[in-house]
Amino acid sequence: MSSPEPTPPTIGVFDSGFGGLTVLRALIARMPRARFSFLGDTARLPYGSKSRRTIARYAVESAQFLVREQGAEFLVIACNTASALALDAIQDAVPVPVLGVIEPGAASARAASQTGDVLVIATDATVRSHAYSEACQAQGLRALEKACPLLVPLVEEGWTDHPVTAEVIRIYLNELNADAAARGLRPDTLVLGCTHYPLLRPLLERSVPPGVRVIDSAEAAAESAARLFNGRVRPAGDQPNAQTAGQPTEIHCFATDSVEKFQHLGSRFLGYPVGPVQLIDLGG
Amino acid sequence: MSSPEPTPPTIGVFDSGFGGLTVLRALIARMPRARFSFLGDTARLPYGSKSRRTIARYAVESAQFLVREQGAEFLVIACNTASALALDAIQDAVPVPVLGVIEPGAASARAASQTGDVLVIATDATVRSHAYSEACQAQGLRALEKACPLLVPLVEEGWTDHPVTAEVIRIYLNELNADAAARGLRPDTLVLGCTHYPLLRPLLERSVPPGVRVIDSAEAAAESAARLFNGRVRPAGDQPNAQTAGQPTEIHCFATDSVEKFQHLGSRFLGYPVGPVQLIDLGG
Repeated sequence: MSSPEPTPPTIGVFDSGFGGLTVLRALIARMPRARFSFLGDTARLPYGSKSRRTIARYAVESAQFLVREQGAEFLVIACNTASALALDAIQDAVPVPVLGVIEPGAASARAASQTGDVLVIATDATVRSHAYSEACQAQGLRALEKACPLLVPLVEEGWTDHPVTAEVIRIYLNELNADAAARGLRPDTLVLGCTHYPLLRPLLERSVPPGVRVIDSAEAAAESAARLFNGRVRPAGDQPNAQTAGQPTEIHCFATDSVEKFQHLGSRFLGYPVGPVQLIDLGG
Repeated sequence: MSSPEPTPPTIGVFDSGFGGLTVLRALIARMPRARFSFLGDTARLPYGSKSRRTIARYAVESAQFLVREQGAEFLVIACNTASALALDAIQDAVPVPVLGVIEPGAASARAASQTGDVLVIATDATVRSHAYSEACQAQGLRALEKACPLLVPLVEEGWTDHPVTAEVIRIYLNELNADAAARGLRPDTLVLGCTHYPLLRPLLERSVPPGVRVIDSAEAAAESAARLFNGRVRPAGDQPNAQTAGQPTEIHCFATDSVEKFQHLGSRFLGYPVGPVQLIDLGG
């Protein structure tokens, strides 16, 4: 006989926009019985081109909303830029555990890499922070990072399987591989350091040299979160058809602007319709 | 004998980022003796993907800074999105004349077009506002608008003369021309409804069908501003070498974030080094 099921926790998931819905999707796959509150700070996106000071202020306000207003007992920062530049500030500002996407991504790269040399593609601000380099170094890896600022707009234009996007990826990866070769690196792993990039995974898989593995920080972060909740939420494996079995995951979505755009584009990232999105005002 | 020269006015120029420096460049060419204060609201860009309510609030705060703190006696809204969505709100909020870029652009298209049918390319928010359609209609023109969201990031990546950018422009203009043909329009004029697009003018000129004229709203707005100042600022034609003759234009640049990026990228738009940029905080 099984013991009574524990109360499902509320997990707050935060992103500057809706790209973090790829992380939510990965979380739901592993914890379909949890209650999720997702906040996209769409009025102030993109964080990727802003300064550390500004990003930290925005991220802290968003985290506080999820904890104070939504009762989140655990936060996943589903935004590489905010994880890179504001994780400490968020951890200082809220009294609940906070998980970013950078360290899980680096740990996943560690598990995948044979050569110990990895490539990271991300937004400009994430790359400038060198958060991935530092997290990879802590895992004993050498990492080379590259900002790929055109990939987010290409995903948002819907050109996820388009010759122009394939060409942009080819150019970026050629530059990155040439740089790696010049430094004597032998990379065998590519980390997707932005939550928009999983939508480009098929194109990226076709563009990397043979033998190079593609690591998705969204999947890696969801794995880490699921391990932290071991015992509080029955893992997805025990209830393979939870959603179709009449026990839908409870998801509440909030945005600071452009609710229609969130609903329209967000479904591409989540993989099914986002449902109602509530507009909130964080000031600024 | 000439009369004593009138005191040069302070002209406030506002943009969500630094694209509006193309408007400042055009203003300086016509009024090299004026004093300019330029504010780029870089912490909150891009406006192009945000809602009218949010854009109006941001634009009003920025306009008030230029008038109250910088003593601007005249404002040029060098941002198509803010001109499209917030011109009324700004005019209500400050006690000085305010000129946007949309109406000058439409007037310039009127002067250029023989067929009365014009095409407009712009950001998503500018297109959704239909401000160009309405301004063109007021001039007796039929306008067809298209959002081209990849062009701003391509300019910011520095790919202003790049095969990928040429291909993206070809795709966008093909879609626009096909749509125009389907509606029975015979366009002979293309309006650049975003301040980033003048940097793509050579590529755009090569991509439009023969006989189609390209109209730059930045140039059109600067023409209108210079006419409004007739008598207060000696026109550029009277002092062809004002800047090299030891009478440099006085320019003060302000940004709400990313001062280094402003200086680095801004020079491409202004055509020469931007000089010191002062960081200011408008809240938010």
